[in-house]
Amino acid sequence: MQEPLLMNLGNNVYLDGDGLVIIDRRRIPGEIVPLVCHSHEAVAQAIEDMAVQGAGDIAITAGFGLYLSALEAERRHDDRQQALHRLKHAAERLRATRPTGFHLAVLVKKIMDRIEEDDGPFSSVILTYLTEVLERQRTISQDTGRHGETLLESGDTILTHCFAGAGLLYMLHYATMNGRDIKVICTETRPYLQGARLTAWSVSQLGIETTVITDNMAAHCMSKGMISKVFTAADRIAMDGTVANKVGTLQLAVVAAYYHVPFYILGYGGPDRRTLKGEDIPIEERDPGEVLEFRGIPISGPDVGAYYPAFDLTPPELVTAVVTKDGIMSIP
Amino acid sequence: MQEPLLMNLGNNVYLDGDGLVIIDRRRIPGEIVPLVCHSHEAVAQAIEDMAVQGAGDIAITAGFGLYLSALEAERRHDDRQQALHRLKHAAERLRATRPTGFHLAVLVKKIMDRIEEDDGPFSSVILTYLTEVLERQRTISQDTGRHGETLLESGDTILTHCFAGAGLLYMLHYATMNGRDIKVICTETRPYLQGARLTAWSVSQLGIETTVITDNMAAHCMSKGMISKVFTAADRIAMDGTVANKVGTLQLAVVAAYYHVPFYILGYGGPDRRTLKGEDIPIEERDPGEVLEFRGIPISGPDVGAYYPAFDLTPPELVTAVVTKDGIMSIP
Repeated sequence: MQEPLLMNLGNNVYLDGDGLVIIDRRRIPGEIVPLVCHSHEAVAQAIEDMAVQGAGDIAITAGFGLYLSALEAERRHDDRQQALHRLKHAAERLRATRPTGFHLAVLVKKIMDRIEEDDGPFSSVILTYLTEVLERQRTISQDTGRHGETLLESGDTILTHCFAGAGLLYMLHYATMNGRDIKVICTETRPYLQGARLTAWSVSQLGIETTVITDNMAAHCMSKGMISKVFTAADRIAMDGTVANKVGTLQLAVVAAYYHVPFYILGYGGPDRRTLKGEDIPIEERDPGEVLEFRGIPISGPDVGAYYPAFDLTPPELVTAVVTKDGIMSIP
Repeated sequence: MQEPLLMNLGNNVYLDGDGLVIIDRRRIPGEIVPLVCHSHEAVAQAIEDMAVQGAGDIAITAGFGLYLSALEAERRHDDRQQALHRLKHAAERLRATRPTGFHLAVLVKKIMDRIEEDDGPFSSVILTYLTEVLERQRTISQDTGRHGETLLESGDTILTHCFAGAGLLYMLHYATMNGRDIKVICTETRPYLQGARLTAWSVSQLGIETTVITDNMAAHCMSKGMISKVFTAADRIAMDGTVANKVGTLQLAVVAAYYHVPFYILGYGGPDRRTLKGEDIPIEERDPGEVLEFRGIPISGPDVGAYYPAFDLTPPELVTAVVTKDGIMSIP
């Protein structure tokens, strides 16, 4: 097996000298284009512009944005107070990039707590912490994948939406290692096509038979008995069990319930103790223009509007279980 | 109001000398490109390649293909037997272009019956008949639209999928004339984007507020109470009430039922007496390559497959009612 680029964040978001390299996910898999960021502002824009995606990956990338801000403070010989001020400003900017995900705000807060507790230079405190987090994220992905794998049986065809994180790839990799014959169907996931571009490409790199469908074909496939289980990730899970994830997740969950297909969430880091109810989760609305074009080509008429909610909320009664690093959790 | 190009088939599929002009729907609305066909084979390819779409429009366009074949027979001074042989061959070719729709096979058969009954020159028999059919289709669209309009209330936001035919446009036009304030949301309808390109453009030409969403956003919109009714067309309705229509219709019907949103079919010409059950309707599968690219730009990796069922089957229990030229029909 060739390790898929997206199976390990360290391969596609990494430091090179005093710059942060992000392999631009909008261009994958057609082109592998490194985007080099030299400031927290450049990192914030890369996150806003979807050069990186996925709640956990966005959080760690934002952490590197703080690291670049700490380097900037050192270059300018800021005193500790000035540097702290600079970092707080950067933290606020980075946190505001994507409001729906849970990991981003948590990780930014943890870094800010850590630098206030630790006497060391901000940049090395942040870097040490990010190295730990990267390692921990890899372990969480592997553990989540290992538990998810216990849900699979030979002959299963999995439907997945958007890019459900490295845990999905580990789950499929372990299943293959255990001799299970699994096929994968990916919704293309408009408008950014993460399913076609990121997931289908990564899964095919594992040597697994991979089929792309458009987002409107899932019910047809389920009606024909072509799908045995659905797996998606979660950007945030509220305490009432509501799952916020890429728009389209709710639609798949409704359809899966109708056809009695189990619907699993890979919940790398939830639930969020401070979000009591689903309705407390802010749903990011992105530029409607992104719906009305495909790589710059307009797809509708001049007097037509669009709506682009980037996430939706799936109620717990539509979720069969959440796969966590610690095991399979049913939502009561 | 500007009459939308797609409100009247005669404006976008018409004879010019001895050629048939088809305004290429794959290029609408970005470009208005006339495709000129001089043989039934050219018409068959235009239908297969989706230069024209919609069950009724495809049928009439195929009829013009037969007309071109009759002209060819005259140019070659075929005797009546030779000409009939030529036309039967053309009829078979044209009927095979799209297997799911019901109107195509019916109209081709009617033309073949008509020329065998009538002593006149084949070309003028066909042309007279097609002129009647075009006029009848316009009346059916208007009558269907008039009945559909009685289902609308001021404040409604209609969700529609693919291009549901001129009847949808008449329905909205009449509603506007009657002072009803209606908004329309169109699913973009991948992979050919008929919703974004044809429907949203046509509806906006009626002066109605039009919003495009990607195919995966419908459940989110319904969960927010943003959609009051769904309207789609039908390519074929079986005697058991099963509706074959553009893939994605089933998914919307399942989601609409979950959110208690009424789901209406504009049934211009069904049910098909010879199709007893939904499972008897052949579902056309198109080239999977069409899913894996957008205007020639590949959207996934090299080892990734795709699946492209062009239609799906919606069971009658998910359909609130069928709007016909004669009135609103509930499926028992």
